[in-house]
Amino acid sequence: MTSAQPETGGGLLAEDLRDAWASLDEQEKVEGFRLLEAAEAEEFFDSLDARGQSALILRMREPERQLWMRQLAPDDAADLVQAAPPEERDALLRVLDAATRSEVTALLAYADDEAGGLMSPRYVRLRPEMSVDEAIAYLRRAARERIETIYYIYVVDAEHRLVGVVSFRDLFAARPEHRVRDVMHKDVISVPADLDQEAVANVIAESNLMAVPVLDAEGHIQGIVTVDDIVDVVREEATEDIQKLGGTQALDAPYLEVGLLGMVRKRVPWLAVLFVGQLLTATAIAHYEDALARALVLTLFIPLVISSGGNSGSQASTLVIRAMAMEEVRLRDWWLVLRRELAAGLLLGLILGVIGLLRVLLWPNRVHAFGEHFALIGVTVAVSLVWIVMWGAVAGSMLPFVLRRLGFDPASASAPFVATLVDVTGLVIYFSVATVVLAGTLL
Amino acid sequence: MTSAQPETGGGLLAEDLRDAWASLDEQEKVEGFRLLEAAEAEEFFDSLDARGQSALILRMREPERQLWMRQLAPDDAADLVQAAPPEERDALLRVLDAATRSEVTALLAYADDEAGGLMSPRYVRLRPEMSVDEAIAYLRRAARERIETIYYIYVVDAEHRLVGVVSFRDLFAARPEHRVRDVMHKDVISVPADLDQEAVANVIAESNLMAVPVLDAEGHIQGIVTVDDIVDVVREEATEDIQKLGGTQALDAPYLEVGLLGMVRKRVPWLAVLFVGQLLTATAIAHYEDALARALVLTLFIPLVISSGGNSGSQASTLVIRAMAMEEVRLRDWWLVLRRELAAGLLLGLILGVIGLLRVLLWPNRVHAFGEHFALIGVTVAVSLVWIVMWGAVAGSMLPFVLRRLGFDPASASAPFVATLVDVTGLVIYFSVATVVLAGTLL
Repeated sequence: MTSAQPETGGGLLAEDLRDAWASLDEQEKVEGFRLLEAAEAEEFFDSLDARGQSALILRMREPERQLWMRQLAPDDAADLVQAAPPEERDALLRVLDAATRSEVTALLAYADDEAGGLMSPRYVRLRPEMSVDEAIAYLRRAARERIETIYYIYVVDAEHRLVGVVSFRDLFAARPEHRVRDVMHKDVISVPADLDQEAVANVIAESNLMAVPVLDAEGHIQGIVTVDDIVDVVREEATEDIQKLGGTQALDAPYLEVGLLGMVRKRVPWLAVLFVGQLLTATAIAHYEDALARALVLTLFIPLVISSGGNSGSQASTLVIRAMAMEEVRLRDWWLVLRRELAAGLLLGLILGVIGLLRVLLWPNRVHAFGEHFALIGVTVAVSLVWIVMWGAVAGSMLPFVLRRLGFDPASASAPFVATLVDVTGLVIYFSVATVVLAGTLL
Repeated sequence: MTSAQPETGGGLLAEDLRDAWASLDEQEKVEGFRLLEAAEAEEFFDSLDARGQSALILRMREPERQLWMRQLAPDDAADLVQAAPPEERDALLRVLDAATRSEVTALLAYADDEAGGLMSPRYVRLRPEMSVDEAIAYLRRAARERIETIYYIYVVDAEHRLVGVVSFRDLFAARPEHRVRDVMHKDVISVPADLDQEAVANVIAESNLMAVPVLDAEGHIQGIVTVDDIVDVVREEATEDIQKLGGTQALDAPYLEVGLLGMVRKRVPWLAVLFVGQLLTATAIAHYEDALARALVLTLFIPLVISSGGNSGSQASTLVIRAMAMEEVRLRDWWLVLRRELAAGLLLGLILGVIGLLRVLLWPNRVHAFGEHFALIGVTVAVSLVWIVMWGAVAGSMLPFVLRRLGFDPASASAPFVATLVDVTGLVIYFSVATVVLAGTLL
């Protein structure tokens, strides 16, 4: 991908700085940043996330800090302030002008992963009785101010309740003597201020809008969320989900910028929980130690059999978790999913069971390797695989439903978590099948 | 999330239809769709993805089909045509008007996961020598036509090469007598037509632009990619990566809409490959069968020890794969990553090793469970864990680099794949450590 750099007019320096960024310490970052030309610096600053901007600005003194803080739209400034340590936040707010400061302070009241925390308060509103010509003249003045977008214009009544929306383009193409009321759309897609950012992203993605208005409980417009912010949200949420699915906590920062201890701290909790869960496998095997002593050959297939269940479970849980995040599957669809996974798991188990059976029957020196009852060993492996793979698919697909029902993040049903769960139960299935199949011969 | 529906003016019927959609057959879908009012139907149609739109339209006859096809922007029409079976594509193109048909045909020449396949050919271009007033008058006419956006206006020279960009807002706020050349930005961020869509998404996310122009090799503008298309791309790419990380092929369709056999077909290849890989664990254990016969107690910890390596490997590969997709980590950073994972893996291994050692030493009836040499068993487990967890972190983090270097998708280094790799090598590490630690006592 490095060869596929976009063509920009940016100089080599900005590119070098971007390349080296992750490996610089905070002081070197500020020094490198100061070497950039004004236009490049602005572009570079914009491309940093709130955490990066905040780290940079905290190293600057007042006049420089003010210059960069005032550059930001209120929603971005609020994100930056939120990314700074609590004791620094007042100092950052102080460099803003009074009007922006009060906007930013209002935004800080919302959680940063809700619609209210994403929105910009700088949208354009009109009254329905204005003429199209008056509206355009008004917008021409508004375009010179620091508003987020003039491309959607929200129409509000005397009580500031949202009654319609008109795109700038519609207004521009309308007859000058028409009223705003005549050209506006009354079916406005909006979101409540406390809607989770992932749900806001789903609304914008489905509606293909460039912005949606954010309403309070009484239908008053509080701000707008624009699609460019949503791109960041979608990437951020996907990153979090992917990291959780891999069995770590969300890093909340680029990989190379997380220190060694921070990295260990994000990884050790799940690893330790899974380890303690896996200790149960030792208990399970200890329980069947007599059987193993008589039929040591059963040991050979322990990892094979239980990990096949884990793999089948990883597949099912990952598919269901993503489908939930995309709102393709809802809580009440659990029954549909269960039926599908039972059937799919059975088929997958049969396929692996046949491969396993054939492998044992065709093993070179099979009598030497597995003893005279090699065919029964093959049957044990095959029958266990059918049950374990099916159980993996069912457990992996239902666990996200259970977690969500209990109010946890379904993405916690990570591949390693499901695998551990299925490993323990898989051992019980394997030895139970062996007890039945090998009764009277080996056991 | 179902309670967090956006407030829309849409009637109950549209909502019901959306809820039931996945469980309807193709004919029921068309019938349900036809029951919607015009405005609702339009919104509903827009919210479907290209595959869904295509399935719907293929069930319609010519006049209805034409109505819906002509509703679409050329890039969306091209996606719809690409989603249809090859033998139906000509029929779909035929209902378009001649001008759109030639635009759509041109777009079909690009792969649908490249900038060229995402772009809309309907952008506005101006010449640099136009006055601001002329430009606005021209845009006012253009706004009435079916163009993608009038919000960014691209400035081209006589040879159609891109020389600048001006936002509509800048133009609107500029003095009427100025020339376009005076208000345009010359540093235009653009992308080549063959850039992969994931890289296009990264460019847009970093630049915070609402659209980027797509250029051919000579710098001629071919079209624009708008940020609303990018939201879909980011979601789609994340879904693909997540599904691959879970050890399946990308479904390319919503979970509930994939049939049972389709689902098995997407899951069986990886499951079978991993199964064959896991067969090596049987071979590895067979190789140490004599040791096991003498020290059966070693069996107890096989799943525990090898799955800890697998979990550590899943964590590392998932983090690195996501960092690569976000362009936080590039191919040449492998050395940085290796150093970090060696250190993190060592620490994680030491932590698990200590937990493992304590568990064995504090096991109730430890002498009965593990024999008189229980302390040595504990040391074997602990030392193996350190090595295996570290090896898991190194293997898991390096595998994505190797895959990318060889031209494969790094996301193929899924949690189950890494776990299988580490399981086999983990057994070798475990038994080697046991041979050294238990020499002279149990072995």
